[in-house]
Amino acid sequence: MNPSNGTFRKRGVDYPVPEEMFTLPGEYYHSEDIYQQELEKIFYRRWQLACREEQISRPGDFIVVPVGNESIIVSRTKRDEIKAHFNVCRHRGTRICMEERGHFENGVIQCPYHAWQYDLDGALKGAPLMRDVSGFKKEDHSLYPVNVRLWGGFVFINLSENPAPFEDEMGALFERFEAWRLPELRIAHHLPYRLKCNWKLILQNYQECYHCPGVHPLLADWTPFQNAVHDCMEGAVIGGYMELTTEGGSMTMDGLAAAPPVCDVSGDDLQRVYYYSVYPNLLLSPHPDFVLYHLIRPVNVGEITNDCYFLLHPEVMNDAKKMERFQSAIEFWDMTNRQDWAVCEQMQLGTSSIRFTGGRYAPQEDMLYALDKELLKALAEKK
Amino acid sequence: MNPSNGTFRKRGVDYPVPEEMFTLPGEYYHSEDIYQQELEKIFYRRWQLACREEQISRPGDFIVVPVGNESIIVSRTKRDEIKAHFNVCRHRGTRICMEERGHFENGVIQCPYHAWQYDLDGALKGAPLMRDVSGFKKEDHSLYPVNVRLWGGFVFINLSENPAPFEDEMGALFERFEAWRLPELRIAHHLPYRLKCNWKLILQNYQECYHCPGVHPLLADWTPFQNAVHDCMEGAVIGGYMELTTEGGSMTMDGLAAAPPVCDVSGDDLQRVYYYSVYPNLLLSPHPDFVLYHLIRPVNVGEITNDCYFLLHPEVMNDAKKMERFQSAIEFWDMTNRQDWAVCEQMQLGTSSIRFTGGRYAPQEDMLYALDKELLKALAEKK
Amino acid sequence: MNPSNGTFRKRGVDYPVPEEMFTLPGEYYHSEDIYQQELEKIFYRRWQLACREEQISRPGDFIVVPVGNESIIVSRTKRDEIKAHFNVCRHRGTRICMEERGHFENGVIQCPYHAWQYDLDGALKGAPLMRDVSGFKKEDHSLYPVNVRLWGGFVFINLSENPAPFEDEMGALFERFEAWRLPELRIAHHLPYRLKCNWKLILQNYQECYHCPGVHPLLADWTPFQNAVHDCMEGAVIGGYMELTTEGGSMTMDGLAAAPPVCDVSGDDLQRVYYYSVYPNLLLSPHPDFVLYHLIRPVNVGEITNDCYFLLHPEVMNDAKKMERFQSAIEFWDMTNRQDWAVCEQMQLGTSSIRFTGGRYAPQEDMLYALDKELLKALAEKK
Repeated sequence: MNPSNGTFRKRGVDYPVPEEMFTLPGEYYHSEDIYQQELEKIFYRRWQLACREEQISRPGDFIVVPVGNESIIVSRTKRDEIKAHFNVCRHRGTRICMEERGHFENGVIQCPYHAWQYDLDGALKGAPLMRDVSGFKKEDHSLYPVNVRLWGGFVFINLSENPAPFEDEMGALFERFEAWRLPELRIAHHLPYRLKCNWKLILQNYQECYHCPGVHPLLADWTPFQNAVHDCMEGAVIGGYMELTTEGGSMTMDGLAAAPPVCDVSGDDLQRVYYYSVYPNLLLSPHPDFVLYHLIRPVNVGEITNDCYFLLHPEVMNDAKKMERFQSAIEFWDMTNRQDWAVCEQMQLGTSSIRFTGGRYAPQEDMLYALDKELLKALAEKK
Repeated sequence: MNPSNGTFRKRGVDYPVPEEMFTLPGEYYHSEDIYQQELEKIFYRRWQLACREEQISRPGDFIVVPVGNESIIVSRTKRDEIKAHFNVCRHRGTRICMEERGHFENGVIQCPYHAWQYDLDGALKGAPLMRDVSGFKKEDHSLYPVNVRLWGGFVFINLSENPAPFEDEMGALFERFEAWRLPELRIAHHLPYRLKCNWKLILQNYQECYHCPGVHPLLADWTPFQNAVHDCMEGAVIGGYMELTTEGGSMTMDGLAAAPPVCDVSGDDLQRVYYYSVYPNLLLSPHPDFVLYHLIRPVNVGEITNDCYFLLHPEVMNDAKKMERFQSAIEFWDMTNRQDWAVCEQMQLGTSSIRFTGGRYAPQEDMLYALDKELLKALAEKK
Repeated sequence: MNPSNGTFRKRGVDYPVPEEMFTLPGEYYHSEDIYQQELEKIFYRRWQLACREEQISRPGDFIVVPVGNESIIVSRTKRDEIKAHFNVCRHRGTRICMEERGHFENGVIQCPYHAWQYDLDGALKGAPLMRDVSGFKKEDHSLYPVNVRLWGGFVFINLSENPAPFEDEMGALFERFEAWRLPELRIAHHLPYRLKCNWKLILQNYQECYHCPGVHPLLADWTPFQNAVHDCMEGAVIGGYMELTTEGGSMTMDGLAAAPPVCDVSGDDLQRVYYYSVYPNLLLSPHPDFVLYHLIRPVNVGEITNDCYFLLHPEVMNDAKKMERFQSAIEFWDMTNRQDWAVCEQMQLGTSSIRFTGGRYAPQEDMLYALDKELLKALAEKK
């Protein structure tokens, strides 16, 4: 970095950096009021990951997706479409599905309380004894709909009644990662975590490798932080990659590949681990030999669930010997995840101090500064 | 129902129904502010069930009754009267009784902190070293009194300093159920429950059988919901009954009576199960062969305790063979209770949704609409 | 006491007492708002006990001290000074130390997140990649300092940026208890407690023995409450003593000494147990044969930790036989502590009642009235 001209040199390129990048004050991780605004203006308004298509593979299958304080039913219709609805009966507001996932027999969504019945498109089909109620029309009492869009085998939802175009937010993903043929991949493993930190701290943690040498010695060996490159910032998508130092390497305990290259992955992609954050709740990491993603869900202002999934081609999953080797990737990421969770939880604790009024970002944390500005813009939106 | 003239036909009678019965918005089950108002204006102001007289059978016996955030001591004096007082020492505010129930030796209520002593009427009898304190008079420092009234072996209390007449609220009960000779009955069994729902949802659940076919298949077999009749709405009392389809039947696993008819029960009453709600915390269900009642206590805006008691004549309780048969009633109601609790808890969850702004009641839910209006009237009272 | 002239006779002396000493209303033990003010205006502003010097005996040793919602690192420098700092990294606010106590290797305090390094004086020594950041100076990013003062082997801290003089608050302690040679004593035993009551109730409990006859029969035998004398009220220090009835006695299960007299203790002090409260968080009780102290820490408005320590001369601690005998003091105080905790928790419960609007103090509770007035004065301070 050359302070005289405000640029930052990384991998031979001079990037412009803002002169003074201050962090947010600590209240942004602790204020109940700010958290409620984030739910309203981000989680109840933006496109976000719900699940993988494969998690509701047959018509009638459903999965219940928590979004802040809301509960959303995502299900597959008989026409093989994916639909989503608020998990709320239109009669008296009862939560319809108690299970985390299941199957609607005969395509009927039935409230457990007074047995009102909806079809998989959310239309009210049965409402006992309501026939003669003055002014009551079934067509006015469909389940509250939630918008759905699909990409790469992922199901995205948007709770808003007037959602922004999916393409504006997610378009940057469409052209990327085609070589991985994401829709063909399947969940090979799931690591569920629950963390005591604000949801934004996980996104920050994912967008800088300034912490890697100290926090992740093994990761820093396989992909030195000097090799970090940002190559995308568009809509909800911020991303980059890190170069693997070992040829044919990957993020495993010994640094060697955990599986054959995924589908059509070739060339430079064989030496790169991508880290794409898809605001606000998906962290997507295509590796040469597998795809890792995290699904972040706020539980309250200081707590999240963080579900880490590994995607593989079914051919690999059907090969017991290959899956044995794959354990090394799971072990590596479980270890590395926990290293991150520990420091995120420490940051949650420290930022509540009366003395902490903000700090200075390092140049390598410029993406965090960008995330902070996006947050402030979102919070300034009208209700 | 005939929408043109706004009546609802039930068992051959045309009842008038309101044209448009909307439910309360969801906040009434979730707002901390509304809950605090309900405590102040209902639980700290209305007559409500405290316990059965038999629970404090000897002079000096006491039971500690939680009412919202308050704790009330109900005890029997040497003159065999029942008195109630706030469980708060007049010296420095210490909670006097730690136990749920017990016996005051020698008729002395003594604070565990500084040993101030009160008699069973609440009068301050001993206050060590306070004799010479300027302006201090024992007669100004009696325990804070709570009003007490008795009916049917039940002890009712009212925390207000200016309670409404007991007769106005509870008068509708006085003439009813004399055949059961309620004061002679004793607690034969107690099922304690703790539920994650607002207290009003249990009262609503009790006042409609619209949910019975789906939620309670067995109950609906013994007493089809078409047989439901409302026969009382006066003061704090709302009630009705359901007709048993089986002669000599009752609410048990096999639908047959669990015990001989209670005391003088005869005629139509042998084929009826009564469901009377005594606002705000007693649900009273005389059956031909036993009496069931629920005591509802709010713990917080989204949680209650619900104590279910079975009353029998001591003659039945002293007969081991009859009590063996009686298990069938306990089993039936425990099963049926849990079916209700599950849907009430689902309704608590769903009504918190941002999308739920209220729904339409079915004609069979007209009593809920009446309850809602009573609530709004109570909340509109002055502080 | 003679009400006509407003004096109170104790041990042959006429003390003036206020005519009407009312307690605080109950909200002072339950209001979240008042509690937050107490943190700001008392715990974040006043001198208070952090630890004993011996708990960080070697250069590099540290202990982490919770103060309300803050976390403070107290450590010993290479120059053998004791320093304290907020446990907050200046980079992004991460809490630095996770452990309750430990040792900083090589005198380096390193943040676990991005490896910023501070020396034991709090100066920023290493901040990777920050060298070229515009306007960034290491000297502007020292750890936030906390004031430290030592007395009697105790470490006191003050979180304020403009602390009142230590001498003004604590001066009354300096001349007292010299015979015990407090700096030479060491922690012989530690009883940790967690209580469900407001922090002020413990200070009140410590400042009156009006409750002793009822709550502590054994203590009242060894030191009758009539023998209580107040002999100090200056700055943060309020104190007095109780006379032992048995010659060569102490507070043990059999009333006899638990150990030889401490250091130079002689004369009247051999027959006295001192009870000094050092506002807001130290209760100091020199006995003839040992020193007892309690360290009070608020956890929230209705909960505290209360750590009870016994100090002895190392000579006694190195004598196994003497330590066996000393168990009698530990047993006595553990029993007596628990008697106090029970009534304090009962007072916490009772004072939340809507009916409790305050009571009258007994003359023996005059120090509580003084404490209450000090509290109101503190809360009236400007932010």
